[in-house]
Amino acid sequence: MEALHEPRLVGVGVGPGDPELITVKAVRALEEADIILVPRTERSANTAGRADTIVTTAVPSAAGRIVATPFSMRERSGVGPERRAAWAESRDAAVRAFREGARTVCFATVGDPSVYSTFSYLAAEVAGEIEDLRIEVVPGITAMQALAAAGRTPLVEGREVLALVPVTGGVDVLTAALETADTVVAYKAGRHLPEVLDAIAATRPEHDVTIGTDVGLAGEVLRDGKDPAAREAAPYFSTVLVTPARPTTGGRL
Amino acid sequence: MEALHEPRLVGVGVGPGDPELITVKAVRALEEADIILVPRTERSANTAGRADTIVTTAVPSAAGRIVATPFSMRERSGVGPERRAAWAESRDAAVRAFREGARTVCFATVGDPSVYSTFSYLAAEVAGEIEDLRIEVVPGITAMQALAAAGRTPLVEGREVLALVPVTGGVDVLTAALETADTVVAYKAGRHLPEVLDAIAATRPEHDVTIGTDVGLAGEVLRDGKDPAAREAAPYFSTVLVTPARPTTGGRL
Repeated sequence: MEALHEPRLVGVGVGPGDPELITVKAVRALEEADIILVPRTERSANTAGRADTIVTTAVPSAAGRIVATPFSMRERSGVGPERRAAWAESRDAAVRAFREGARTVCFATVGDPSVYSTFSYLAAEVAGEIEDLRIEVVPGITAMQALAAAGRTPLVEGREVLALVPVTGGVDVLTAALETADTVVAYKAGRHLPEVLDAIAATRPEHDVTIGTDVGLAGEVLRDGKDPAAREAAPYFSTVLVTPARPTTGGRL
Repeated sequence: MEALHEPRLVGVGVGPGDPELITVKAVRALEEADIILVPRTERSANTAGRADTIVTTAVPSAAGRIVATPFSMRERSGVGPERRAAWAESRDAAVRAFREGARTVCFATVGDPSVYSTFSYLAAEVAGEIEDLRIEVVPGITAMQALAAAGRTPLVEGREVLALVPVTGGVDVLTAALETADTVVAYKAGRHLPEVLDAIAATRPEHDVTIGTDVGLAGEVLRDGKDPAAREAAPYFSTVLVTPARPTTGGRL
């Protein structure tokens, strides 16, 4: 049964924060893992970060199999030395685990490994070092889905078009999306919140605006983006949901 | 403990097909439900549809609590008599359940209740009939996430912008999205597949194209959209994922 020992690297989406918003498949992958790599930002280097907390709450037996790897938040754009070093350290942790006999290594990612995750970079680097590596991805609930659920605001109905935009690089890309899509979701909007709200007011003044931070967690904050208080800066990982008014049931079918 | 008896209507996303791609929260909601409404299209009216199969596989005890409700696929656009009748029947089934003493009624939706689901229409109609109705939404993994995972093609990396487009109304809206977003996902692409592939080839000839049907199910089909065989018509609920070439790791950061 040699095939059973094929090394397997699994990118596991653990959802946006609420440990119950993890899939049954993700729970199984984490239970089967020999080692679970969990990214920690500089801020959470010595404490449990969001991914750790979800993993250990959803799968209590995971605690002894977690290996923290660095996730650098210091570089705002591009791939500089800090990002490169963080990726190398994650790769080395995975490679070491396989060389020491691990069959299944999971990389736990907040949200979904296919949506703004570093898992694809890790997988490419580990595949370069480990022969016959099988790569698998278990999708996870994203922040935009959690925000839509918490705010009971559908993301898209009928024929509406959705755009998902990170505003890391400024609001121009957001304005372009607002002009072409019905619903726009802005990620990492915290630092640019007043600019983001101005761009929305200028382009889609009649749309509803919902801002969510730590959705599904104890510190959850949901705000109406038209409330002046919403202009105060919000944390970096805040999500802004801009949705069209939907006066008629099924009006966009 | 009167508050415990507040009627609760829960839109439960059951994911794209693989019964393991349901969240722990969705499993709990289905376990707690007195009645589980499950939409069936005309084609599956007398058999188990996709939502039924996911629900009964993920939560075997659900079988005796399922009530099938119609989901009309006959009208391609607008809200005509068939859609209106189907919605009325679903609403009446929910209202009847509450009036007969149900505390929790779930509506199981394939994918996510916030993404092209009829749950928002149902919730609005039931809220008009049942006093103090509490509405909750449990998000679910969408078809685009399952396709990205199965094809191991990230949806978005770094600063990329994602557009999600239903091609129910033709390919113009797809072409517009291809011109502005980095990654474009086309839903309900089956009927228009040759036109969809032509629009992609004309606008983004260098992009990768992945077509998925029944992803995560026994009949899963994944195709490279550049393969001439991919031009054959695919089922209506096929998803097309158009992603940029990513020659450098982290090149879009």
